[in-house]
Amino acid sequence: MSTHTAVLLISCPDRAGIVAAVAAWVTDTGGNIVHAEQHTDASDAMFFQRVEFTHDGSQSLANLSTQFESIAQRFGMTYSLRELPWRPRTAILSSKAVHCLADMLTRSKYGDLGLDVQAVISNHDDHRELVEAFNYRFVHVPVVGNEATARTEQEKSVDALLEQLDVELIILARYMLILPPWFAKKWSGRMINIHHSFLPAFIGANPYRQAHDRGVKIIGATAHYVTSDLDEGPILEQDVARVSHRDDVSDLTSRGRDLETVVLARAVRAHVEHRVLVWNNRTVVFG
Amino acid sequence: MSTHTAVLLISCPDRAGIVAAVAAWVTDTGGNIVHAEQHTDASDAMFFQRVEFTHDGSQSLANLSTQFESIAQRFGMTYSLRELPWRPRTAILSSKAVHCLADMLTRSKYGDLGLDVQAVISNHDDHRELVEAFNYRFVHVPVVGNEATARTEQEKSVDALLEQLDVELIILARYMLILPPWFAKKWSGRMINIHHSFLPAFIGANPYRQAHDRGVKIIGATAHYVTSDLDEGPILEQDVARVSHRDDVSDLTSRGRDLETVVLARAVRAHVEHRVLVWNNRTVVFG
Amino acid sequence: MSTHTAVLLISCPDRAGIVAAVAAWVTDTGGNIVHAEQHTDASDAMFFQRVEFTHDGSQSLANLSTQFESIAQRFGMTYSLRELPWRPRTAILSSKAVHCLADMLTRSKYGDLGLDVQAVISNHDDHRELVEAFNYRFVHVPVVGNEATARTEQEKSVDALLEQLDVELIILARYMLILPPWFAKKWSGRMINIHHSFLPAFIGANPYRQAHDRGVKIIGATAHYVTSDLDEGPILEQDVARVSHRDDVSDLTSRGRDLETVVLARAVRAHVEHRVLVWNNRTVVFG
Amino acid sequence: MSTHTAVLLISCPDRAGIVAAVAAWVTDTGGNIVHAEQHTDASDAMFFQRVEFTHDGSQSLANLSTQFESIAQRFGMTYSLRELPWRPRTAILSSKAVHCLADMLTRSKYGDLGLDVQAVISNHDDHRELVEAFNYRFVHVPVVGNEATARTEQEKSVDALLEQLDVELIILARYMLILPPWFAKKWSGRMINIHHSFLPAFIGANPYRQAHDRGVKIIGATAHYVTSDLDEGPILEQDVARVSHRDDVSDLTSRGRDLETVVLARAVRAHVEHRVLVWNNRTVVFG
Repeated sequence: MSTHTAVLLISCPDRAGIVAAVAAWVTDTGGNIVHAEQHTDASDAMFFQRVEFTHDGSQSLANLSTQFESIAQRFGMTYSLRELPWRPRTAILSSKAVHCLADMLTRSKYGDLGLDVQAVISNHDDHRELVEAFNYRFVHVPVVGNEATARTEQEKSVDALLEQLDVELIILARYMLILPPWFAKKWSGRMINIHHSFLPAFIGANPYRQAHDRGVKIIGATAHYVTSDLDEGPILEQDVARVSHRDDVSDLTSRGRDLETVVLARAVRAHVEHRVLVWNNRTVVFG
Repeated sequence: MSTHTAVLLISCPDRAGIVAAVAAWVTDTGGNIVHAEQHTDASDAMFFQRVEFTHDGSQSLANLSTQFESIAQRFGMTYSLRELPWRPRTAILSSKAVHCLADMLTRSKYGDLGLDVQAVISNHDDHRELVEAFNYRFVHVPVVGNEATARTEQEKSVDALLEQLDVELIILARYMLILPPWFAKKWSGRMINIHHSFLPAFIGANPYRQAHDRGVKIIGATAHYVTSDLDEGPILEQDVARVSHRDDVSDLTSRGRDLETVVLARAVRAHVEHRVLVWNNRTVVFG
Repeated sequence: MSTHTAVLLISCPDRAGIVAAVAAWVTDTGGNIVHAEQHTDASDAMFFQRVEFTHDGSQSLANLSTQFESIAQRFGMTYSLRELPWRPRTAILSSKAVHCLADMLTRSKYGDLGLDVQAVISNHDDHRELVEAFNYRFVHVPVVGNEATARTEQEKSVDALLEQLDVELIILARYMLILPPWFAKKWSGRMINIHHSFLPAFIGANPYRQAHDRGVKIIGATAHYVTSDLDEGPILEQDVARVSHRDDVSDLTSRGRDLETVVLARAVRAHVEHRVLVWNNRTVVFG
Repeated sequence: MSTHTAVLLISCPDRAGIVAAVAAWVTDTGGNIVHAEQHTDASDAMFFQRVEFTHDGSQSLANLSTQFESIAQRFGMTYSLRELPWRPRTAILSSKAVHCLADMLTRSKYGDLGLDVQAVISNHDDHRELVEAFNYRFVHVPVVGNEATARTEQEKSVDALLEQLDVELIILARYMLILPPWFAKKWSGRMINIHHSFLPAFIGANPYRQAHDRGVKIIGATAHYVTSDLDEGPILEQDVARVSHRDDVSDLTSRGRDLETVVLARAVRAHVEHRVLVWNNRTVVFG
């Protein structure tokens, strides 16, 4: 008998008895809880839980999910039941900066994040050789010609490609084209971006220039789910690095690369391990 | 009806059904789980849990604890049931360094840690004025005369005083006398020390001198429960600060003070909030 | 022959020969450079230098400063010549929050920052006992009666008191009254504030509430010189701490206290050690 | 007229007039100091300086170096005069772990560290494809057959290859074979290793296992020059990451990879930018 691992992610209004009901259900299905973490947001009176449990695989996740329905309805839950490890069909969107892309490729190659990379899609052709060296597919989708319609055409092409590849996860690895609201909405909750500042400081263009001009002593990077509000999506992960007056804009940019790379990787890991719930444009990231 | 908060801390061999049994018990007693966190140590096959729940106070903790006995026995649990907030009767042991002491007094004064400071006990009389200014009791217990028996006499006096004060928590706020094994054992699990290095680096005397001589680029501080093995007790909290070649031993000492102060405070907070379990000389510190 | 230490702080347009001229001057006066650090801002073509040197004290700083004039004029320098250690006559402005105040008092008591505290001035009378316990003077300058003129009266009283005390440094230790532009301008370069956010994120009121609502994973604190632009003065020091979804506004406030305390202390130390130059609303903080 | 940049690195016994003499020399040769940083180690009475200056290139570095001789002799200096940017002929030594190697290749590809990678040398053949994809040379130098002489043969082969490639820098990117003292001595000051712990904690094998067993709350990585004393060479750079009871040995290993990668890169950058001096088995790393 092989062992399977599943993760149940739950959000619902808080009330007594939820933990007991969920735990009893897992036990009743023959499962064993290996990690459970729960969070109650007192101000919103909301309950969030991640339950990781092993089961014998005699029932499919779809079946288990159906069985959970009655509990979900009793407590008014939003929930999802997912398997672990998860190898999501992934597309990486990239432009000219190579550091996040190269890191994602390396991690995919040595299995660190468990991504099943379907393609790297870029508006520039610069990194074809690198991507193909890792034996991944590279697709160049440039913005061609007249700007007004050209951008829309390119967006549609990228979207169509993502559809065709049936991707479950989109990673914006310093992709420099702003995506339109319809695109952000369509792939909502499945698209992670890395922003090169400690949001909400330095929203918008040239954050390292802004950071330099303000004379901050610490720079940051922020990974967030993409929403139609630019730079305003739920924050998944942030980190910072100390800088000084000696660092000009190009130094900050260089220092920032290491931050961006690591922060994006951590955010992707949290997502792939089903450790994230979103509520009120904020994330609950379980440990 | 007033609301009371209790914390249940559990350790036991891992097996199926624990979470469900505990959650059902809380619900059955009329309680509501507001935060539950669980950890399973796969290599030791041990289960650890912290359950924070509200109840109406109609039953005492002692009664609740008695009712929990049958579950505890069924699963072979070690457990404790504590109230929140907890204001432990506390003794602070101090020597000449003032930073951790002053910080503890300040936090006690403005309620940050919820300590009920019974006395500051010191082998030096230097900080009497400061302590009394905060309206806390100061007791000078010096080592007097011939060293061989003098130290033992002093240790017995301190111990007798702690007994008499009926303390529940002892904080070694840079107390510079090494405590004997019998003392460490007697107050085991109730005595927290701050060590001025990133343990296990630089065990023993003059850690900042050792750090300087080794040329490290980062220094640290470590708060740990005191055991009879010097500097080897379970680690509660650590933090670090970046240093450079410009920092001589006295700079490191000065930089380290801020670390020691904050790390000790965090460790005490975790302990007072019943977030710590000890297993195999390691701590589980719930978030 | 006793040894004296002086610090020369220089800003001027960059050109060849400055370092050589300054070093030659120090040598000519019989001094010995013990630490020199220089920074050139390439984009502004500005030169900044801090030269720490020992001398035999046979000449006063005023005399040495006069002798330096010809070099200063040759290179168009703004400069100051200061002694080390410096014990500035200091006023601490405080409101209800006690953590930064208590920390400053403690450090002053054990000599960590070398402040010569002349008075603690507060718009509330809460911390009189604490301040007097440290044997420092406490002055209560409340805002009395009708708001429109009351604030102005209070500001004038505080200013008059600072004049009378002849202070060289003003520390706003979580002082909660916004100071008027004339006040900020008058004490410019001599007044340090601690802001409870990672500026420029969360400018204005309730930064911890703002941080919570945005769902950031890291909070910060910022020490800066006060200018007439609220929260926009030159940043001296910043630091951050990791937080999570579990931290509500009050947790962030509590976590933030430790940050604020340490960041303010580091900023004051840099200022007192003559390690700071200001240019274009940014600081050069020498190591 | 093109502009050239040179760096002068100086160590000598401290005495008056060094800074002035060096600055005057630079000015006399027609150079302009763009950054100068100096450190005096008070306990050893040693003086260290890094002077970065521009010159018109009309004289070679060798010529300038010769001219500097008289000053060097006057003050008993050890010194070196180097150009910036420096693109050292570099060999990367690697074993099975890929993260540091892939990062070095990526940085080399996009010019971040300015390395002129001559070859990747490995005792395993695993990463040939990856390295060749980046268009760098891969050389497999396995340990073949009987252990006693096999290791020595392999070491000699690697050394011969390094000689033949005329490398100026050797990066041990998680190279898992311990190098013999003669090898370490021969390439002394030109060989950088990354150790997967916060040295001097957890010296030797399996540091993440050791860290887990001790229950530390922070793990680290250390980059150092290789000396014949294993894990005891001068430390170039360190960094740490927070961990918890939830992290088993494999989690620590995974978390540590990001640390190792970044710490090694920072150390290499400091070395390549001529910012490092070694004294008494410690480094002075200028900012």
